[in-house]
Amino acid sequence: MASSVYRKRLAGVRALMKKKKIDALIVPSSDPHLGEYVPDHWRVIQWLTGFSGSAGTIVITGSFAGLWTDSRYFIQAEEQLRDTGFQLVRLRVPHTPEHIEWLRAKVGKGKTVAVDGRLISAGIMRSLKENLAPKEIRLNIKADLVTPLWKDRPAIPAEKAFSIPIRYAGESRCDKISRVREKMTEMGADYQLLTAVDDIMWLLNIRGKDLRYSPLLLSFAIVSHDQVLFFADEEKIPGPMKSEFDIDGVVLLPYDAVSSVIRTLPEGATLLLSPSATSAALLNAIPGNVNVKEEISIPTRMKAIKNKTEIKNLHNAMLRDGVALTRFFHWLEKRPRHESVTELTAAARLDGFRKEQEGYTGPSFATIAAYNGHAALPHYVPDKSTDAELGKTGIFLLDSGGQYYGGTTDITRTIALSKPDRRQKKDFTLALKGTIDLAMLRFPYGTRGYQVDVLARKALWDNGLNYGHGTGHGVGSFLNVHEGPQTIGSAASGDLKTILEPGMLISDEPAIYRQGEYGFRTENLILCTEDCETDHGRFLKFETVTLCHIDGELVDVSLLDDRELYWLNDYHEKVFRALGKHLEPGLVDWLRKKTLPINR
Amino acid sequence: MASSVYRKRLAGVRALMKKKKIDALIVPSSDPHLGEYVPDHWRVIQWLTGFSGSAGTIVITGSFAGLWTDSRYFIQAEEQLRDTGFQLVRLRVPHTPEHIEWLRAKVGKGKTVAVDGRLISAGIMRSLKENLAPKEIRLNIKADLVTPLWKDRPAIPAEKAFSIPIRYAGESRCDKISRVREKMTEMGADYQLLTAVDDIMWLLNIRGKDLRYSPLLLSFAIVSHDQVLFFADEEKIPGPMKSEFDIDGVVLLPYDAVSSVIRTLPEGATLLLSPSATSAALLNAIPGNVNVKEEISIPTRMKAIKNKTEIKNLHNAMLRDGVALTRFFHWLEKRPRHESVTELTAAARLDGFRKEQEGYTGPSFATIAAYNGHAALPHYVPDKSTDAELGKTGIFLLDSGGQYYGGTTDITRTIALSKPDRRQKKDFTLALKGTIDLAMLRFPYGTRGYQVDVLARKALWDNGLNYGHGTGHGVGSFLNVHEGPQTIGSAASGDLKTILEPGMLISDEPAIYRQGEYGFRTENLILCTEDCETDHGRFLKFETVTLCHIDGELVDVSLLDDRELYWLNDYHEKVFRALGKHLEPGLVDWLRKKTLPINR
Repeated sequence: MASSVYRKRLAGVRALMKKKKIDALIVPSSDPHLGEYVPDHWRVIQWLTGFSGSAGTIVITGSFAGLWTDSRYFIQAEEQLRDTGFQLVRLRVPHTPEHIEWLRAKVGKGKTVAVDGRLISAGIMRSLKENLAPKEIRLNIKADLVTPLWKDRPAIPAEKAFSIPIRYAGESRCDKISRVREKMTEMGADYQLLTAVDDIMWLLNIRGKDLRYSPLLLSFAIVSHDQVLFFADEEKIPGPMKSEFDIDGVVLLPYDAVSSVIRTLPEGATLLLSPSATSAALLNAIPGNVNVKEEISIPTRMKAIKNKTEIKNLHNAMLRDGVALTRFFHWLEKRPRHESVTELTAAARLDGFRKEQEGYTGPSFATIAAYNGHAALPHYVPDKSTDAELGKTGIFLLDSGGQYYGGTTDITRTIALSKPDRRQKKDFTLALKGTIDLAMLRFPYGTRGYQVDVLARKALWDNGLNYGHGTGHGVGSFLNVHEGPQTIGSAASGDLKTILEPGMLISDEPAIYRQGEYGFRTENLILCTEDCETDHGRFLKFETVTLCHIDGELVDVSLLDDRELYWLNDYHEKVFRALGKHLEPGLVDWLRKKTLPINR
Repeated sequence: MASSVYRKRLAGVRALMKKKKIDALIVPSSDPHLGEYVPDHWRVIQWLTGFSGSAGTIVITGSFAGLWTDSRYFIQAEEQLRDTGFQLVRLRVPHTPEHIEWLRAKVGKGKTVAVDGRLISAGIMRSLKENLAPKEIRLNIKADLVTPLWKDRPAIPAEKAFSIPIRYAGESRCDKISRVREKMTEMGADYQLLTAVDDIMWLLNIRGKDLRYSPLLLSFAIVSHDQVLFFADEEKIPGPMKSEFDIDGVVLLPYDAVSSVIRTLPEGATLLLSPSATSAALLNAIPGNVNVKEEISIPTRMKAIKNKTEIKNLHNAMLRDGVALTRFFHWLEKRPRHESVTELTAAARLDGFRKEQEGYTGPSFATIAAYNGHAALPHYVPDKSTDAELGKTGIFLLDSGGQYYGGTTDITRTIALSKPDRRQKKDFTLALKGTIDLAMLRFPYGTRGYQVDVLARKALWDNGLNYGHGTGHGVGSFLNVHEGPQTIGSAASGDLKTILEPGMLISDEPAIYRQGEYGFRTENLILCTEDCETDHGRFLKFETVTLCHIDGELVDVSLLDDRELYWLNDYHEKVFRALGKHLEPGLVDWLRKKTLPINR
């Protein structure tokens, strides 16, 4: 779109600001559920500026308009914002509200800062208030200046929700609701407010089609001790689901009714909510005489622990995903020499192989198909402007995932398109040691994710190397590919209470990046399981559930110790046994070669 | 003492409680500085109950009197409290104020709970208030019922303070004060309140003799931008020190004057204090219009990073300590067969060898000399009632430390008095692997102690073993043997901001305990130092500074990998080279044998 379009939109916003006596307007990149993926309806920043990145914050004043975003988007934002009237402000620390500092410094005493309170968390609102109060700056959190201007705004998808049968969910809606209520009683709560949509999908055993990468139906819920209020677009709820809801005490209310219901919560009641997932607008709707308890939501903690059925289905999803990936890598290696493949066509082809698999509904996130230097950017996603053709030599990193009925997958493999050099093999193997060392760990019950992160990094650290992101994130069950509360990272940030528990699914993805050259990452999903009980207590372990061979060409076997080499060969044997019987004969032979024991 | 004495004292306290309308009295085991070691003057619990343990809390009501203490004192407390009128209450979690729960449950609505506010931290006071408020229980924090009753109360020692010359301190008093003031300016503070005595000793380059294991002079200080108010007993300050103070802007005031000075802090001033080190009484003395900023004190953070002079002196102290320990272990092994040695006499003998060393002033904590089953108790300290004779077979664990001008030491060695069996060798070696693996680590700048703790445990975890305490604590420079803010532990408790920095000294003490049988612990002090700078950032490492051989008889070399074995042999060579030249010929030969390379 021509940049003049964006300049006009900016002028329109400024005119409205003037009318409403707003001196500075904040425009966030979220929707009212504050989740990771946002439907097109809520991609306000793209409409306003043309910037297509997933994360950013806009601030507009009479004389300034800027977009705060993080380093992965610097180049793209520079280009997309050119001549739009918006300038790029580089975030020093990703995902932090550095625009608040700017506002504190630049907005004059007694002025008004405004934001649409539905789109910022209660936590950000508090930070805004704290920072603006000393300068007596007013905060207006009811400023939706976009709706009046955005004429052709995309609607929320109208596709219907669908039920998850017990053979996938493993626990009925009623049983889940009972368990949540028991926990509410324990915590002295009358109500649990649910704003994170995946929490609601899990609780009600339903899914929707409102988002691109996660099977979610935009909705809110309030669980009380006698009913569940479910706020969603009635047209998207099929008749039989409505009948089930009636029986199970789930009351369907209009999506927009959530604030008005919150406003009528009875005096003295105790309401649980999560301040990072609850919008400022909803928090402000709570009557002053209601006791608010801020805690990670009960469903968030419960759904992190997969039940037996979910684990069985997870294994099935892994099998199907592994078959698709094997076919993809076989195709890539065996394709005719003249057939050109780019990052984008490779990603599309992989999606094609996944589509052949039963129960696949789509990718679980935007595929990172990255050739050479692109692979050194951990969050690179190819688009038309960056798409690179895969050469006959070099490194190809593929980080992708699928949504299947019964499971969400997330896997990274890196392959060498030609014989790798010594440094590449060393780098690859050091990062792989991290993947293996974490996977092999036995640890006492009560261990937290930040305690074990170092095991994924130690081989790299020994060699003066490191990677700048976390080691592992939780993964949903046919839900979000990034799911809390557990993580494996270097910082004890977030929730210190969360321990690793049997049934938790988590990624294991140490990496090494050589700027401008290449990147290596081997990512498997690992499932926390029971190990043994000794005089010294209860011990847990991880089971690697991802099924796909690792490129042996890149392994420098001299850098693996005996246990690591045993793990790798054992893993390859497991991959072959699991996938082999689902592959056509030619592919079986190919996979056999790829999974043969590596010897010293 | 007869138990009737304690019953009388309890009756005396109850009579005073009645008079002062106190329904429940709390008696803590601290002094007004809330440090680890307490002078006899403040050992109120021992006077009141006969219990001689270092940590506990008493609660007295009209019908109940109990002592809360942790598991290491259960047996001892049972015996010492017999017929005193006090009963033992077992803490579920050590060092937690579980008596507050009891008070909340047992004290009636509208009643009064009292405590001497000088002896509890501001943090504990807040917890008391929060827990007692819902029952409208009054909290009286000015209740000193012991002073009127304790007739022969020991005085605070009258010994004089002494200066630490620049050749030990490495930085002048004035330079330290300037650095603290710069930081205060950065933090927007007008005053820094210092209540932890070691902070004050460090800042003023002085030491005292008020405590048994730490060279401290009981005192308070308030640093402002133009002077340092130093609250101490004037009689203990030598004349020349007073003159120096005059020149350096340090104003000597009576020890007891601290609260009245705090009461007169000017309106609008900003005062820094640490809520865990500041008593409730002092916090309450602060005028309401003073801004309180709660932070770990600036000197605590500064003194944790040892300067070049301190590090040079530390190496000297380690050398002397190593010579004393070598002589001790040689004596123990070579003593005539008929010569009986007990835990207590061994500890005394070790102290004797240390006393031969220049600059030694005494032990840095009560020596843990532990034979067989006693060694399975991590905090065991022998006394007359438990003292065990060392047999011809078995395991002897010795955890001890010395205070030297220029350095504080802390070292554990475990030796086999006879040929150890396979299980013992395996246990010893698994824990030793932890000591070595942590010592060998290279890690990026910015790493926190809780991130690397697992490396000390991994070999044990792999075998279903673990230990129930932290891996490492900071160590002072001729100051407290336990010094913050850095720790290496499994929990990201306390201060999440503290990273490991060059100059930090920390212990490295993984262990394994077999209840009733034996315990193994190899503890060295490790100094954090610069390592290298790579494309991936700045890396740090540890240098093991403790110098004393490790019992090779207990090592199962098959369990060490090549790097660990190399480390051990290299360490032994370093120990021999360092200590050999300070030992008499016979001892040199003995140490040579103890430090010969171990081969596979």
